[in-house]
Amino acid sequence: MREQGLGVQVNYKHIFTQAIDRLHSEGRYRVFIDILRNKGAFPNARCFHGHNGPKPITVWCSNDYLAMGQHPKVVAAMEEALHDVGAGSGGTRNIGGNTHYHVDLEAELADLHGKEGALLFTSGYVSNEATLSTLAKILPGCIIFSDELNHASMIAGIRNSGCEKRVFRHNDVDHLRELLAAEDPDAPKLIAFESVYSMDGDIAPIAEICDLADEYNALTYLDEVHAVGMYGARGGGISERDEVAHRLTIIEGTLGKAFGVMGGYIAADQMIVDVIRSYAPGFIFTTSLSPVLVAGVLASVRHLKQSSEERDGQQASAATLKRMMAEAGLPVMPSVTHIVPLMVGDPVKAKRISDILLAEYGAYVQPINYPTVPRGTERLRFTPGPAHNEEMMRELVDALVEIWDRLELEFKKAA
Amino acid sequence: MREQGLGVQVNYKHIFTQAIDRLHSEGRYRVFIDILRNKGAFPNARCFHGHNGPKPITVWCSNDYLAMGQHPKVVAAMEEALHDVGAGSGGTRNIGGNTHYHVDLEAELADLHGKEGALLFTSGYVSNEATLSTLAKILPGCIIFSDELNHASMIAGIRNSGCEKRVFRHNDVDHLRELLAAEDPDAPKLIAFESVYSMDGDIAPIAEICDLADEYNALTYLDEVHAVGMYGARGGGISERDEVAHRLTIIEGTLGKAFGVMGGYIAADQMIVDVIRSYAPGFIFTTSLSPVLVAGVLASVRHLKQSSEERDGQQASAATLKRMMAEAGLPVMPSVTHIVPLMVGDPVKAKRISDILLAEYGAYVQPINYPTVPRGTERLRFTPGPAHNEEMMRELVDALVEIWDRLELEFKKAA
Ligand SMILES: Cc1ncc(COP(=O)(O)O)c(C=O)c1O
Ligand SMILES: Cc1ncc(COP(=O)(O)O)c(C=O)c1O
Repeated sequence: MREQGLGVQVNYKHIFTQAIDRLHSEGRYRVFIDILRNKGAFPNARCFHGHNGPKPITVWCSNDYLAMGQHPKVVAAMEEALHDVGAGSGGTRNIGGNTHYHVDLEAELADLHGKEGALLFTSGYVSNEATLSTLAKILPGCIIFSDELNHASMIAGIRNSGCEKRVFRHNDVDHLRELLAAEDPDAPKLIAFESVYSMDGDIAPIAEICDLADEYNALTYLDEVHAVGMYGARGGGISERDEVAHRLTIIEGTLGKAFGVMGGYIAADQMIVDVIRSYAPGFIFTTSLSPVLVAGVLASVRHLKQSSEERDGQQASAATLKRMMAEAGLPVMPSVTHIVPLMVGDPVKAKRISDILLAEYGAYVQPINYPTVPRGTERLRFTPGPAHNEEMMRELVDALVEIWDRLELEFKKAA
Repeated sequence: MREQGLGVQVNYKHIFTQAIDRLHSEGRYRVFIDILRNKGAFPNARCFHGHNGPKPITVWCSNDYLAMGQHPKVVAAMEEALHDVGAGSGGTRNIGGNTHYHVDLEAELADLHGKEGALLFTSGYVSNEATLSTLAKILPGCIIFSDELNHASMIAGIRNSGCEKRVFRHNDVDHLRELLAAEDPDAPKLIAFESVYSMDGDIAPIAEICDLADEYNALTYLDEVHAVGMYGARGGGISERDEVAHRLTIIEGTLGKAFGVMGGYIAADQMIVDVIRSYAPGFIFTTSLSPVLVAGVLASVRHLKQSSEERDGQQASAATLKRMMAEAGLPVMPSVTHIVPLMVGDPVKAKRISDILLAEYGAYVQPINYPTVPRGTERLRFTPGPAHNEEMMRELVDALVEIWDRLELEFKKAA
């Protein structure tokens, strides 16, 4: 890259430097913490950041919510696949990359959500982007109704579809009704939303949104990324728990959080699955998921269909941590799920608290800053799981209280 | 999904059915062949398609070009990581998903291409989409110059960037010059192209394109997906072989083809890497690559930096198969790389040949139809590797000759 050309030519380096400087000046330049988890002992891990050699830490911000990433059945299944078929799939789904594992997992996921079919993607991000952008292109004149707090991957899919978009206020059914009523009844419509919003821990009114979809003849698209594996008797998500799965057109999920591995999917009528399978560039033109990953997910999904122990343990841990924080006067946000967000409201302070926790207390929780959450609502987000015990929580809350004092942050009156 | 609402409401099912019917009527509805490779014995595999239980086949269309997916070092490294840290990373790169493996692999890939830094993505598709769409947004008024045969993932990135695009005729440097000269000299410019075009097997004139980039102060973006691991003394791709890596702004590659696993990356100046790392939604908002995959790729990249045995074996196999096909009068296309494309020119016939090969000869090669290649240039695409021996090739060519006769396809005069 040349720094300076002839005359007034573009100075690329200058433009790039400015882009990075903006982040520094807003206190939201991201430094990745380099860690290795200790399999079998999670949430214990080793941190390689800012010191020589690894230092033991406790991870408080993993999305491997149920510690399935270290479950013996998952590890055994991956090992077997690795030895049976090798490391990668070697091709796209259409050209050599369609293995028996992929076919089996799609059947398993379709069954999990009570749908006719399912389709695998390389990630939850790609499943949202590819499905939403393709669906809206197939439906001429489609209007997408999108919750204002929808994840970046849904926003990308909607933007890339090039179709009209209406944003409704978060979980606000009245506002959604207003927006639906304002449009041509004959225009195709799609309502896109999440079940569990992962940064606040609240839950969408799925049944009411489905009522509106019926009334206005709209399709529905539900992102259950932070709920699959964790809610419902078989881990089918909030839509299973609330018995509304059959009312949703498309349910989307990830294989990288509660299921502990990596990848994403949708579940829907066979015809919709076939349309996305046949038309979505993000599905078609990419090497398929490694069969090793797919084998691990198969074991994970099958286990969590039958076992509620992990789900119950996680809910208990989350309830305990929320209670302890509230009792200590820490500004824990009102979450009705497994997510425990602690409001800070400033990107620099959020980062500072996180730095002290890691350096002085060996507790790893990443600050959550813009663009992941709106500016002014920067926070710490804890995700205690079945493997975090009460003693760990006690130490964590004591550390937070000490830091809150040290930085002169405000306490809430204990509940 | 309701089939019929009140009045003239949209009939979604009808629209979706039409979309699928279009594919059937054009003979390009895709049926995925369900296979499992036999690790350690690749290209041998088992096929589960259209019969009860597995049937042994030979795979001729894998992009695991060097059979690294079954290399003992790769398998051992993945097994070790699986037992050390578990199945998945449990988070985005910023929130808990940045492991020591990721950091090490990025350093290894930067070194491979002689660049300051590298950045991992969940796939080559995502690396192209995320990098191109983000880069062009950071550079106001950027114009992207794109080879007409660029891969769908680059096209998606360019479209999603929302910036101006000029398409130059395939590998046509004069046309590119014309297009560059026609634009405002002060506008930021980016030239996006591939080194090895995977459906034809030809190679871009990289040095000449870099000359033009210098002359017109443009950045360059090179997709080396079908060349990394396979060309250059250390597997750095065509840009290493042609000694032009230092002249390219960004080199992009996949970890799912010659490296045998899954994932993608870019290598570039540290500042550009930092800009993409900080601004690209497709990088930021997704669970990072499983450390198990990353460990496997690390072993694969390190091995191929030192060993040319696999590269040499592949080149020899490709040369042999091309020669045999030409001698038999089969219409093998003029490829200067490891790719052996056989022209058919009709989607239905291409599928028919492929079906016969699989059912009667146990040879698996997928037909390549639109939209992967332009209509009227449908073909079979063979990718012989170091593990395909001459006897296998002899059987394959004999089978093809028999089928060419049976379907009354045209032979070329032997060269
Ligand atoms: C709501 C939501 N949807 C989708 C995703 C993307 O899933 P994945 O990490 O599998 O790409 C995430 C987070 O990563 C998310 O929070
Ligand atoms: C030229 C080119 N670029 C990028 C990709 C995408 O790479 P990946 O399979 O890792 O997503 C492919 C094929 O899959 C390709 O052929």
